[in-house]
Amino acid sequence: MSEKPFGLSVKALITDDEGRWLLLRRSMKSRFFRGEWDLPGGKLDPGERFDEAVVREVAEETGLRASVAGAAGVGEFELPAVHVVVLYVRAKASPGQVVLSGEHEAFEWVAPDKLLEMNLCQDLRAFVEKHPRPGAV
Amino acid sequence: MSEKPFGLSVKALITDDEGRWLLLRRSMKSRFFRGEWDLPGGKLDPGERFDEAVVREVAEETGLRASVAGAAGVGEFELPAVHVVVLYVRAKASPGQVVLSGEHEAFEWVAPDKLLEMNLCQDLRAFVEKHPRPGAV
Repeated sequence: MSEKPFGLSVKALITDDEGRWLLLRRSMKSRFFRGEWDLPGGKLDPGERFDEAVVREVAEETGLRASVAGAAGVGEFELPAVHVVVLYVRAKASPGQVVLSGEHEAFEWVAPDKLLEMNLCQDLRAFVEKHPRPGAV
Repeated sequence: MSEKPFGLSVKALITDDEGRWLLLRRSMKSRFFRGEWDLPGGKLDPGERFDEAVVREVAEETGLRASVAGAAGVGEFELPAVHVVVLYVRAKASPGQVVLSGEHEAFEWVAPDKLLEMNLCQDLRAFVEKHPRPGAV
């Protein structure tokens, strides 16, 4: 049990027509998890609904217009000052070119069976390991 | 994919020293899922954090003082006007007497292997079926 305050983040599971996941590599200047592959997402702004946060974060980090399709799972990770609960959300994105923000340095569409070969951030690795058949999430 | 707006609810998984889950039976006057067994919980108030919502709902519905221990899973159900995503949260409750609100008509501490014998609301049944070893959630 954590004595730290809890925070809620969302992460968007966006797949293309071939079922590949959109992953972003975090900047080497990130405060945490630098250089690791992650999903688009981030913490909810105060008062923001989770689905609004998904749409906003996907737009900010990829330039894509997303809509929420459903919940895929939960995860957790620790930061120095907060215990973060992650809500993984299946999202649909309109076709378009991915345009990264300064938070990330690369993107890649990754086939499900290649995900664990990537240097994933820890909560995403745990999520993938728990969901061996990603089509089922 | 739902065209309805999304809402976020929390449900608290509170266990006693014997690992039994605290279940509440919804009132026969409830608008939805009347008479079905559920966990304490409910939807987030506007601007409310999920951990605050857990503490508030547990207090309102059981009279117990709770604290959040971590995330246990997600679920979903449909209401006429909203697609509800449920965040199941492990919570600790201080020992005390359960005092129900008008929303529920009974409570029971239920051993994990007896959960599926209860008339559970649909999202809770799906959650229990997905987590056959509740100690591991």
